[in-house]
Amino acid sequence: MKIYLAGPDVFLPDAVEVGQRKAAICAAHGLTGLYPLDNEADLTAPDASRQIFCGNEAMMDAADAIIANLTPFRGAGADPGTVYELGYMAGRGKFCLAYSNDGAVYADRVGRFIDLTSENGRLVDAQGLTVEDFGLVDNLMMVHALELHGCPLVTPAEIPVDVWHDLAAFEACVRMAAARLIAK
Amino acid sequence: MKIYLAGPDVFLPDAVEVGQRKAAICAAHGLTGLYPLDNEADLTAPDASRQIFCGNEAMMDAADAIIANLTPFRGAGADPGTVYELGYMAGRGKFCLAYSNDGAVYADRVGRFIDLTSENGRLVDAQGLTVEDFGLVDNLMMVHALELHGCPLVTPAEIPVDVWHDLAAFEACVRMAAARLIAK
Repeated sequence: MKIYLAGPDVFLPDAVEVGQRKAAICAAHGLTGLYPLDNEADLTAPDASRQIFCGNEAMMDAADAIIANLTPFRGAGADPGTVYELGYMAGRGKFCLAYSNDGAVYADRVGRFIDLTSENGRLVDAQGLTVEDFGLVDNLMMVHALELHGCPLVTPAEIPVDVWHDLAAFEACVRMAAARLIAK
Repeated sequence: MKIYLAGPDVFLPDAVEVGQRKAAICAAHGLTGLYPLDNEADLTAPDASRQIFCGNEAMMDAADAIIANLTPFRGAGADPGTVYELGYMAGRGKFCLAYSNDGAVYADRVGRFIDLTSENGRLVDAQGLTVEDFGLVDNLMMVHALELHGCPLVTPAEIPVDVWHDLAAFEACVRMAAARLIAK
């Protein structure tokens, strides 16, 4: 069974090595990890970004499931590129798993970046926009999509020292995927 | 034809009114706008967030197309909840449209929030993570998904004074949707 390995991991300085570690964990559990950087794209071509998109989409279409890294990325929430892929896989009816290496409640995490106030019972940011406050780790669309289209979001009991390289929560997803996807 | 109206508009203080304005624009072009807040959800129930999710998903399944508001939300990029929905609709094979009321290049916008440096030809943030630098308005997954599964992202020539209430770019999407979806 093939698992698409989505996440901002591709933006790390050691992106290739992280992908190899993830693929090795999948292999140890009898699964095949598909990592975006395994696609060939000519980064000097004028249509480089489109080549990357098409490679990623073809890889998602070939996969049976997705494990998305929803660890907060440049802000309080998950990387939108990764979230797009989670949505795409849910829409295609694929099995959806994800982890976040920061298990804090979303509203608390927003509060680390900006001042929040309460207005008529709504928690709002400086622009007056509501901050989702359901006690969930990220936006409700991702959290409940995982519950209803795969497995609930995996978070560690404590934030690991290195959120970008600690793969314990990732491996928990791989174990769940193996239990569900490998023929009984 | 039914259009799912996705966006962080639901977080505005006047979220209901914005939805009514969007639905009225759709109606003026012969389309039916479906707005998440039209769903009934008991916000005092313990499973309120799940009710919202299920209502939104049912609405997306009933829609023929999506118009997503990808205007930057609490940071440099689009609202992840909205992006999830765009991905879901692309995965379901629905017609995808979107707009952003800030047409700046993503990398420039990230630079408004944090210092960027160049490392071995990569543009990186303070954590050493690559900043996508393809001259696109947001993450390549959303930008090319729109090109290949609907219509290219619509942006205004200049950022409107009120990015959350100016609906000119939204109306441009509605016109394109009407041209493509209403039987010729």
